[in-house]
Order: sequence, then C-alpha cells, then structure tokens
Amino acid sequence: MARVVVEVMPKPEILDPQGKAISSGLRRLGFDGFTDVRQGKRFELTVDGEVTDAVLAEVRDAAEKLLSNPVIENVVAVRVEEEDTEAGAR
Amino acid sequence: MARVVVEVMPKPEILDPQGKAISSGLRRLGFDGFTDVRQGKRFELTVDGEVTDAVLAEVRDAAEKLLSNPVIENVVAVRVEEEDTEAGAR
Repeated sequence: MARVVVEVMPKPEILDPQGKAISSGLRRLGFDGFTDVRQGKRFELTVDGEVTDAVLAEVRDAAEKLLSNPVIENVVAVRVEEEDTEAGAR
Repeated sequence: MARVVVEVMPKPEILDPQGKAISSGLRRLGFDGFTDVRQGKRFELTVDGEVTDAVLAEVRDAAEKLLSNPVIENVVAVRVEEEDTEAGAR
C-alpha cells in the first residue's frame, strides 16, 4: 500500500505563536543559529491500491477541504512516499 | 536565508486519535480510497547564513531535544529546502 504525504503550513502573514515559542525554546537550549521557526502539519494518508493521478487529485481536494484551513494555511506539498518512512527515524 | 524542514510523526505503535478523526472525516466527505491517516508535525527553521553540516547536525539535535518527543515520536526527515516554499500553495 502506498502512502501520500500532505504538508500544511500557516500562511506567511499569519502569526504562529507555537513557532515563536519553539524559537525562544531553541535559544534557551543554546541553539543560536535560527532566526525563525514556523510550525505546520504533516499528514500521511495510506492509499488502498495504487496512487494514480485520480487518487492524487482526490488527495489535493481533501487537503483543501479537510486537512487545511485555506483562510490561514497553505498546502505546501502533496507527494507520494515510499513505504515505512514513518518507522525510519533519523 | 536558507530553510531547514524537520518532519515529525507519531511512532507507528502509538495511537493517533487526530489521524483517526481525520480518517472518519474523509469518509464522511465521500473520500473513500484511504485506509489510514496519521497526523504529525512539520517545522520550518530559518537559518541565519549557510546550511553547513554543522548546522544540520544542530538541527538534528534540536529535533530530538525540542521538536519531538522521542518516547512517542520519530523525526522522519531533516532536509534543506529552497526559499519561499511556505508561500507556494499547490
């Protein structure tokens, strides 16, 4: 079974308090080289069968309708991923 | 300024109630081709300067210490991204 990854981020003009908190946290822990942090979401959709263009179109549709709020978020990526990425920590 | 993306997902053995809710939501909206949904996080770290190997090592360190909870989450990807991906909705 294939997996499609959808990535959603807050629009650039939207404030991101979680990202700001992480940014301060990084500085507090001594990580100094970062000027900004934004936090978004990553979804893994397991597809029953093959990932055809029709399935990808359906995923894009679902990404706009359910996985993101188009008023404040952008769907920044929809891509097919190989198996067991989730398990593979690096 | 470069941007590093960090992707974090719940470990496969951890229940993901948000993912389950999305999965039911998809079915309710008529999206039928998906057997499972998992929700994770995506972070964009803006780096002050060039992304060297040292910076990437620092990001990996930060990903384990602050961006994820190693008990229940895996850092599934740390990668450099070109500019203005955040703005580019698809």
